[in-house]
Amino acid sequence: MTAVLAQVLAAIDQDRAAALDRLFAWLRIPSVSMDPASKADCVRAAEFCAADLRSLGFAASLRPSLSHPMVVGHRKSRKPGAPHVLFYGHYDVQPPEPLELWTRPPFEPHIAQDARNGDMIVARGSSDDKGQVMTFLDGLRGWIAATGDVPLTLTVLIEGDEEADSAPLDAFVRANATELKADLALVCDSEAWDRARPAITTSLRGFAGAEITVSGPSRDLHSGKYGGAAINPIRALTAMLGALHGADGAVLIPGFYDGIAEPTAKTRERWRRLGFDAAAYLAEAGLKHPSGEAGREFLELIWTRPTAEINGIWGGYQGPGMKTVIPSEAHAKVSFRLVPGQNPAVVLANFEHFLRARLPADCRLTLTLSDGTRGISFDPEAPHIASAVAALTDEWGAPPAIVGSGGSIPVVSAFKDVLGMDALMIGFSQGDDGAHSPNEKYNVESLHRGTRSWARVIGTLARISHPT
Amino acid sequence: MTAVLAQVLAAIDQDRAAALDRLFAWLRIPSVSMDPASKADCVRAAEFCAADLRSLGFAASLRPSLSHPMVVGHRKSRKPGAPHVLFYGHYDVQPPEPLELWTRPPFEPHIAQDARNGDMIVARGSSDDKGQVMTFLDGLRGWIAATGDVPLTLTVLIEGDEEADSAPLDAFVRANATELKADLALVCDSEAWDRARPAITTSLRGFAGAEITVSGPSRDLHSGKYGGAAINPIRALTAMLGALHGADGAVLIPGFYDGIAEPTAKTRERWRRLGFDAAAYLAEAGLKHPSGEAGREFLELIWTRPTAEINGIWGGYQGPGMKTVIPSEAHAKVSFRLVPGQNPAVVLANFEHFLRARLPADCRLTLTLSDGTRGISFDPEAPHIASAVAALTDEWGAPPAIVGSGGSIPVVSAFKDVLGMDALMIGFSQGDDGAHSPNEKYNVESLHRGTRSWARVIGTLARISHPT
Repeated sequence: MTAVLAQVLAAIDQDRAAALDRLFAWLRIPSVSMDPASKADCVRAAEFCAADLRSLGFAASLRPSLSHPMVVGHRKSRKPGAPHVLFYGHYDVQPPEPLELWTRPPFEPHIAQDARNGDMIVARGSSDDKGQVMTFLDGLRGWIAATGDVPLTLTVLIEGDEEADSAPLDAFVRANATELKADLALVCDSEAWDRARPAITTSLRGFAGAEITVSGPSRDLHSGKYGGAAINPIRALTAMLGALHGADGAVLIPGFYDGIAEPTAKTRERWRRLGFDAAAYLAEAGLKHPSGEAGREFLELIWTRPTAEINGIWGGYQGPGMKTVIPSEAHAKVSFRLVPGQNPAVVLANFEHFLRARLPADCRLTLTLSDGTRGISFDPEAPHIASAVAALTDEWGAPPAIVGSGGSIPVVSAFKDVLGMDALMIGFSQGDDGAHSPNEKYNVESLHRGTRSWARVIGTLARISHPT
Repeated sequence: MTAVLAQVLAAIDQDRAAALDRLFAWLRIPSVSMDPASKADCVRAAEFCAADLRSLGFAASLRPSLSHPMVVGHRKSRKPGAPHVLFYGHYDVQPPEPLELWTRPPFEPHIAQDARNGDMIVARGSSDDKGQVMTFLDGLRGWIAATGDVPLTLTVLIEGDEEADSAPLDAFVRANATELKADLALVCDSEAWDRARPAITTSLRGFAGAEITVSGPSRDLHSGKYGGAAINPIRALTAMLGALHGADGAVLIPGFYDGIAEPTAKTRERWRRLGFDAAAYLAEAGLKHPSGEAGREFLELIWTRPTAEINGIWGGYQGPGMKTVIPSEAHAKVSFRLVPGQNPAVVLANFEHFLRARLPADCRLTLTLSDGTRGISFDPEAPHIASAVAALTDEWGAPPAIVGSGGSIPVVSAFKDVLGMDALMIGFSQGDDGAHSPNEKYNVESLHRGTRSWARVIGTLARISHPT
């Protein structure tokens, strides 16, 4: 450890009580983006954040978006040639309902304890994402307290619609691409691997979706009159969708797996070292058997293999008893989790072709497509990730977990697609934080060691000339 | 024609105005069985019917049932060895809604005209079934006016729940089997073939049904976390139901078609002579192609071949936009139209076996079975049908159509299963009567010639010693 880093970490350690006070003040603002009544509170939460950025030497302001304001701050390092990073987080929180399940009101943060987690900050937004955002800002604060500067040039973007709608952020990034472009994005909105190890997420699955309507008869028919004569759109729909997967769990749309790379031996070795407990993961959902492609590793199935999922289906009579109707329409919503190598538009086109090839006479098919995002994979051995691994290993005494995500993070896709910028996603929240549940908490340990972690990562990133 | 029959028909012709008055009086009583507010009106309609039966020499009374009262009347013929028939009809009517689509209030019967139908009685229940019941009662009235007797011993059963629930009638028939048993049932609750020909229905399809639930994960899951890991019950359900039919439209449940007889050459010849317009029938539903088993005649598909139909399906997210849920359950309602040779319980057991053979690991299947009824087929050359054909040919100048029904008529099944009694189903209503629609009508011609038809049928049935 350098003498400078030791001073930075010491400053962070001395700031622990004040750091809690600042986070508590932010948590008291009920910035529920999905609640129209919270509009003014969202502005207050944004202003709190902008003021904190100004206290760190940022030129920061609230910027209009399609919905709640964006907080944008810029801070130039005094260090010549300092890398430029964009830190992203969000100040909005999930609705706190059901309120009766909270032991204390959701916007009155307090410290609780349990044997597993030690001291915990309990409040809506403590883990998702105000606490995690503060780990980064407090890391900067440590650097400034110890050295008067940060060895990175910084742009900070804190949005207020992450829990509600990805469109405002996407539009804002597109409209302000030049201003927001940096060498690397830093994101702190994900989970640690466990209490002993933070996680760096290096892959995200993409997404494509479609709502399907199969129309047949011009009106609902009685099966006593038309059964045997009239095509039933539910029969057509189940025949189409029932053919989506083979008995081995593979998706049978022609070309679906084209262009997908196999995991490298290094990746498989990394997975093995994680010691992931697939049986426990399934048991949490009441299950015992993975449903994806046979012969694939479990982490492969949920992180790096694509899926087709029927998220909803409906048609005909759904009330009590029997009604012998042949309905005129049937509907389904189908979505795909995609991985690098797959193009969402091509997947949807192949899916539509797959359906049309199975469309019976007298039926019509309409599809309403959703915006798609590609799967993303970052090289775990890229210099900025290697530097983050080194920094986190120093802080935690063990290397961080390099993980994938089976879901999408729209902001990371926007940074990649619009700004051509990779993201370094580090998370300190715990699986039991209850991010979207009553009594959401963030461990005091997560806040403090997360802050120290970012301070170290800032130090190692500063030594890379071209982090991307 | 015998001199006696000529007198009967003359009496009927003279009674035309009074017959209309009686029917109008009955139609003014809004006996909507599905409307709890119409309970007293249902009793009034039953009392009207019982009084009319008494005027025809019946011992008639209202009898309690699980729902609205049954009207039961008995009348013994003076003729020694007269066959004993049970006539069935119903006094309850469909709800008249939507009221705004009626040109005059639904329970204020009036005569309207159009070029196709001539004079028409317009009111809810005119065709289904008060008008058709009256054709039989007025036929008896003609016999009594001309001869002082009817050459058949009669039981009349007029129920008040046909439009609402088959359970009350079924329970009543079981509880009063000895009283209700006769040589033959007469039913007047079906359609004529066209304006020139009434129809005799000699086959009915049976019914079996089940509601299916496929359960998988113990709670709804996020496809970003569990996609590839967790079985999706909608995928399981669509795979099961999508396998129900082959590309040739055949039902693929093993044993489904076992024991079903092929139509005889005579039956096929009879169908051919009907000159049925399959294209027009499909076009009414906006369709062009029959969906049933390839290589079968159209009337075979809708009358004498069994079907499997998915009447409803639901599961997961059905709202606007996409929600990437893997739901914990998915549901469907499936029903079968059955034909003679199939046992509803065996069909459902084979269906359950078919589903369970396709049930993925980690899924559970539950079925809620509906009461089933067997398909029924009467020999079109049985003496009572031959005698009815002769009588109707005399009245209409052309033979009646011998037809099948693709649906079930629960009362006919109850008569067959509980009482071991065949039914002679003759119908005079027209396809454009709008039985369940606004401005329901019954042609004055249907009423009058229907009455004359029954008078003739009574005469020919009286000459059979063993009609069944």
